[in-house]
Amino acid sequence: MAYDFWYWPTIAGRGEFVRLTLEACGIAYRDRAREDGADALMADIADHARGPAFAPPYLGMDGITVAQTANILFYLSERHDCGPSGMKSRYWLAQLQLTIMDLVAEAHDVHHPIGVDLYYEDQKPESLRRAHGFRHQRIPKFLDYFEYALQSEAGDWLAGGRWSYADLSLFHLVAGLRYSFPQRMATLMPGYPELDALHDRVVALPELQDYLSSDRRLPFSQEDVFRHYPELDAP
Amino acid sequence: MAYDFWYWPTIAGRGEFVRLTLEACGIAYRDRAREDGADALMADIADHARGPAFAPPYLGMDGITVAQTANILFYLSERHDCGPSGMKSRYWLAQLQLTIMDLVAEAHDVHHPIGVDLYYEDQKPESLRRAHGFRHQRIPKFLDYFEYALQSEAGDWLAGGRWSYADLSLFHLVAGLRYSFPQRMATLMPGYPELDALHDRVVALPELQDYLSSDRRLPFSQEDVFRHYPELDAP
Repeated sequence: MAYDFWYWPTIAGRGEFVRLTLEACGIAYRDRAREDGADALMADIADHARGPAFAPPYLGMDGITVAQTANILFYLSERHDCGPSGMKSRYWLAQLQLTIMDLVAEAHDVHHPIGVDLYYEDQKPESLRRAHGFRHQRIPKFLDYFEYALQSEAGDWLAGGRWSYADLSLFHLVAGLRYSFPQRMATLMPGYPELDALHDRVVALPELQDYLSSDRRLPFSQEDVFRHYPELDAP
Repeated sequence: MAYDFWYWPTIAGRGEFVRLTLEACGIAYRDRAREDGADALMADIADHARGPAFAPPYLGMDGITVAQTANILFYLSERHDCGPSGMKSRYWLAQLQLTIMDLVAEAHDVHHPIGVDLYYEDQKPESLRRAHGFRHQRIPKFLDYFEYALQSEAGDWLAGGRWSYADLSLFHLVAGLRYSFPQRMATLMPGYPELDALHDRVVALPELQDYLSSDRRLPFSQEDVFRHYPELDAP
């Protein structure tokens, strides 16, 4: 049975972390809002028939909703035996995924420091101020951590010899930061050779070739979590 | 074997969500930084001997670190058979816990909208602006969701007939919001009878009586995630 996957149909957003895992693991799904539109998504959220989700992305299946990006990925990796298993790997990968999502939330808040209900243009001076700390303190602090996590494992991946959903997510995080802050990332990335190599290994994964070259992989855009405002970037 | 629990020793913070579950489930732990001080915590994080944690809280045990609040709680509930089990409950409770942590992060960012490395006093105009949207859009949006989640279950708790870590966390969230925004919460809470009743049921849990009246339960303070700045509150 194919999962019903629900996310905003026109952006990669947080949904992309789920799409990458669904695709790389070969899990059958229907991208419902891309088939039926954003109105169908809003109607499904309001319906609550399978239990409420606070926000997309979520998976709907027989009588159950699984929401929250990291929770969806944890669920999929367990149910479909995709990626490393074993107690240590399970919680280690969940911990890394949650830290990835923390940085995604901060990347969003750079252009929305005052409120999600306001436009960027209505919080631009605050964004300029927040972007400075994000570029100089927050990105390096998180990337230091991910680089160390990769160094601390014997194999090529975050949990040893086999790729996992967290590796796919880390690839997308690096790609998103490069889209949003190209100048800053050009300065920083030479200091993170393991992270750079991981990004390239995910791009080259045979399991992702079909997806990455398809129109199912949505491009980054200015409506997304990762946005490129030149005034928020600097070397 | 008692867990080594690591968190900042002088604040409740995110660590409190873990402490509540450790205490209510009767799980043996040593609150290491309260025994040995903040320097010991910083040395332990830097050591990375058991694998890196990005930030406290985390649990250290033989050869493994489990970090990220929601991940720690997921781990503890599985390992110690504390709270509802079953596939549906596991992911449902994780989803709720992650949504609780999202609101905790937003409650923090109300007094730190520009940067965690700056003092509140250096971002006060921005905080005043962010607090307005937090009080009027964000708190109601999240509390609507939690109220609905409680209504949608047959029993007294978030996953039916037995309390879980997410119920304990929801109690602490309501307590924290009441400490931070007493005027706004006095206005809003009459609209959330299920949530109000849940708070009181957790306060009355026999498993928590010893802890809640002990000095192990740290009070809210102005160094914490939840802070009371009167200028950020309003009815």
